[in-house]
Amino acid sequence: MSNSLPPLGFIGLGIMGAPMAGHLLRAGHPLHVFSRTKARAEPLLAEGAHWCASPAEVARRCETLLINVTDTPDVEAVLFGPNGAADGLPRGGVAVDFSTIRPDGARSIAQRLAERGVDFLDAPVTGGQVGAQNATLTIMVGGDAAAFQRVRPIFERVGKTIAHVGPSGAGQSLKACNQILCAVNMIGVCEALLLANSAGLDPAQAIETLAGGAGGSWAWTTLGRKIIAGDLKPAFMIKLIQKDLRIVQDAAERAHVPLPGTALAQQLFRAVESEAGGSDLGTQAMIRAYERLTKLT
Amino acid sequence: MSNSLPPLGFIGLGIMGAPMAGHLLRAGHPLHVFSRTKARAEPLLAEGAHWCASPAEVARRCETLLINVTDTPDVEAVLFGPNGAADGLPRGGVAVDFSTIRPDGARSIAQRLAERGVDFLDAPVTGGQVGAQNATLTIMVGGDAAAFQRVRPIFERVGKTIAHVGPSGAGQSLKACNQILCAVNMIGVCEALLLANSAGLDPAQAIETLAGGAGGSWAWTTLGRKIIAGDLKPAFMIKLIQKDLRIVQDAAERAHVPLPGTALAQQLFRAVESEAGGSDLGTQAMIRAYERLTKLT
Repeated sequence: MSNSLPPLGFIGLGIMGAPMAGHLLRAGHPLHVFSRTKARAEPLLAEGAHWCASPAEVARRCETLLINVTDTPDVEAVLFGPNGAADGLPRGGVAVDFSTIRPDGARSIAQRLAERGVDFLDAPVTGGQVGAQNATLTIMVGGDAAAFQRVRPIFERVGKTIAHVGPSGAGQSLKACNQILCAVNMIGVCEALLLANSAGLDPAQAIETLAGGAGGSWAWTTLGRKIIAGDLKPAFMIKLIQKDLRIVQDAAERAHVPLPGTALAQQLFRAVESEAGGSDLGTQAMIRAYERLTKLT
Repeated sequence: MSNSLPPLGFIGLGIMGAPMAGHLLRAGHPLHVFSRTKARAEPLLAEGAHWCASPAEVARRCETLLINVTDTPDVEAVLFGPNGAADGLPRGGVAVDFSTIRPDGARSIAQRLAERGVDFLDAPVTGGQVGAQNATLTIMVGGDAAAFQRVRPIFERVGKTIAHVGPSGAGQSLKACNQILCAVNMIGVCEALLLANSAGLDPAQAIETLAGGAGGSWAWTTLGRKIIAGDLKPAFMIKLIQKDLRIVQDAAERAHVPLPGTALAQQLFRAVESEAGGSDLGTQAMIRAYERLTKLT
């Protein structure tokens, strides 16, 4: 392991953050970590990462801080809360947020950090747990172009498609577009599978036959197969896409853009959330809402 | 050109039928053709196809009859109307219908032809005009398995993915599922592009960046690009997908399956149809309905 690479801080070691931090550690970056649940850090600590008692302590040990938590208030707390990282980051440092948060939240954070001489990049990802594990994530980055170029080698350790898409907030805006596609495409998958079922078609053959045509999508091939296998385990949890779709509709409301298909997806996910444990299922569990609307199972 | 291949009949030489018939002619099949508009047959006649004055005359000259018209009543008229093909087809012959029609219509036609000792295969296609021209269509076939095997070499001349998916009507049922996916995925494409536009993102970069991820679809990549280029020319006309979605909802109604996403797509397409010339635009013109709902263009 080379120690010529600069130290990095990583805050938030959930199902996405932990494998991403692991790639950076194994690439040779000294890694300083903090997570709300220390147990989640243990595998990384066993590989040589250093535990810190607070976000501020992480920030004092690096010039580049990576964050992967859940929602806008979580990122704000990590940076500006008690023992927050903002106090520890040096002027000229950069904070990179992989979480999916509100675009206007990202712009506000960038503004506050800029006042301290710290760059902020919003860098939400798509590709799920598998993408994090295989370092094949798509990373959508908003913020200063020079800061993006500085951080790019780090992005390349954890992602495959890396795009600087505009100023602060632009990464989050594009992630919002992605979540619209994921949510609405799932409606099509469910309705097509229901009709296939009602017509007595073999659903596996249906997926295979239509996959390469004009109806094809990642959702059809990947999540459709999970549905017919009865596998509703989360690759991406319903409660998280619902959080993201609230961000989508909030941005759309400000822009006076009606999104009726997205709204329908939210309502169907809500029906699944009303079941015990429903919000922890994967997004493909939208099929449960349709099953309740029909006599089909 | 070899004449060892059996003669074929082809009825309906529209934007799909004409290139499909051309592949069969150039493969060496003597080809007997009829179309409502004779002008559409002229290029094929120049290549050696034989014009017939009626469907019945086509049927008398072949044991395998291929049909590519529009809707259920059109197929019924070709077969059972005045000078219809059913009277000309020999016992042991087979009629193959590439049109997209009602699954129960296909079953009824199969029943009527079976009484005359003639097999019927419903064989709707997807892949559009480009797929027809390049012989890369997906063909979804319902009907007798032995008849499917007999016709298979012909399918392989015009398509790439060829699947026998069940008894009579099954091909049409699977095509209905495909049209659900096409219609609903388009909702996602429009809403994601609208939000991208409102956020000031570069739409071409948005499409490129999200194409390979969990939001990706054929509609996003292919029709999204047409939308941002302002190209609303039909690869598949709104009036035709609306016809297909009526078939979808009719089948779903009989099966007591609610399809709210598909219904939303129908309403949005209807808004575009209300404009002069709207129904002749491609399905990507759904964006027009959204543009009217917003101040964005």
